Amino acid sequence: MAEVKVFGAWGSPFSKRVEMGLKLKGVEYEYIEEDLKNKSTLLLKYNPVHKKIPVLVHNGKPISESLVILEYIDEAWEGPNILPKDPYERAKARFWAKFIDEKCVPPMWKACWSIGEEREKAKEEASEALKFLENEINGQKFFGGDTIGLVDIAANFIGYWFPITEEIVGLELMTQDKYPNLSKWAYEYCNCSFVKENLPPNDKLVEIFKGIIQAQPASN
Amino acid sequence: MAEVKVFGAWGSPFSKRVEMGLKLKGVEYEYIEEDLKNKSTLLLKYNPVHKKIPVLVHNGKPISESLVILEYIDEAWEGPNILPKDPYERAKARFWAKFIDEKCVPPMWKACWSIGEEREKAKEEASEALKFLENEINGQKFFGGDTIGLVDIAANFIGYWFPITEEIVGLELMTQDKYPNLSKWAYEYCNCSFVKENLPPNDKLVEIFKGIIQAQPASN
Repeated sequence: MAEVKVFGAWGSPFSKRVEMGLKLKGVEYEYIEEDLKNKSTLLLKYNPVHKKIPVLVHNGKPISESLVILEYIDEAWEGPNILPKDPYERAKARFWAKFIDEKCVPPMWKACWSIGEEREKAKEEASEALKFLENEINGQKFFGGDTIGLVDIAANFIGYWFPITEEIVGLELMTQDKYPNLSKWAYEYCNCSFVKENLPPNDKLVEIFKGIIQAQPASN
Repeated sequence: MAEVKVFGAWGSPFSKRVEMGLKLKGVEYEYIEEDLKNKSTLLLKYNPVHKKIPVLVHNGKPISESLVILEYIDEAWEGPNILPKDPYERAKARFWAKFIDEKCVPPMWKACWSIGEEREKAKEEASEALKFLENEINGQKFFGGDTIGLVDIAANFIGYWFPITEEIVGLELMTQDKYPNLSKWAYEYCNCSFVKENLPPNDKLVEIFKGIIQAQPASN
């Protein structure tokens, strides 16, 4: 049997992307929780370039960068497709996954944890980016159509982590009236059985985020 | 016959990536030069998200983001492979192409055009990133092995644009003694016939870069 290991962090949406990909394919794996403040020698050996989780190790061969790993999982194992089969649809999926990483996640995170002018700028950037996603999902259950695919998994931060964070920091950015399609998608995604079973517990994330707030008195 | 159009800018390494991909596959295309200071309605229609070149339009369907386009070209047309066939080798190629875009090109460009402390920081970052590439090419003619592939095309800025810019701005970062493998690769890549024929003329780039220097008196 192939040896599959995931080096991750329980609360990381990037780490969870890899686990979701493996779960979707029905691949069994050993999960190794990394202490991000004291990274293991193995993690640094497997990802000497970025020194970051997640890392997938398949038969001793390491792969890092969550989107790269998801494409690898899709190509290395049989099972439900992560990317569509049609070249144009594949290109669109890659485009939106990249868009989420570059244009959505950074300003959304910054909108939560910055203050003043920086927060306003981030909110504006995030709103603009989310509008494109809101438009893209239009009429579909998932970004992947009827089933979960690359873009849905890439957007897991938007569907689960962000609403939790928003509530804690008192941000009202991704509201149901402004983003009805995205809100519906977030509900569908998080309630899909294999996703639901693998999301980090809400209360543990809340605890972490509240800790960040307490450590940043200036943001209150 | 399929209708293939490329919206690009003659001096852009990202635009040239797309053309190199099409040339490698032997795909004929119509090239449309965009005025980046006055972008066409068609470009804005085809890439409403980023409003940037390059855009590939295949039978009326637009694709943007040069690395996404290269993967599309590889999947949509027969001919020499842009990505390897083996899933692990494909993951490695995607990893390094992403690394070039995120960790090499931005600090290399900044090292050329910034001053003072910002320049020193960018030089340091660029040197670190290039060391990883120097190590990765070790012993191979191209990043793709014996033939040009995704990483070589993605690295075209490093092979052609950067040495020209370095000389003009008086930077000595990617020297032959510090980066012998990369320097040899740059020579091999730029002298590969289909690449050579499609690189923008050296003197035209020199003219553009000298124009930038003149417009930035503070950097002299």
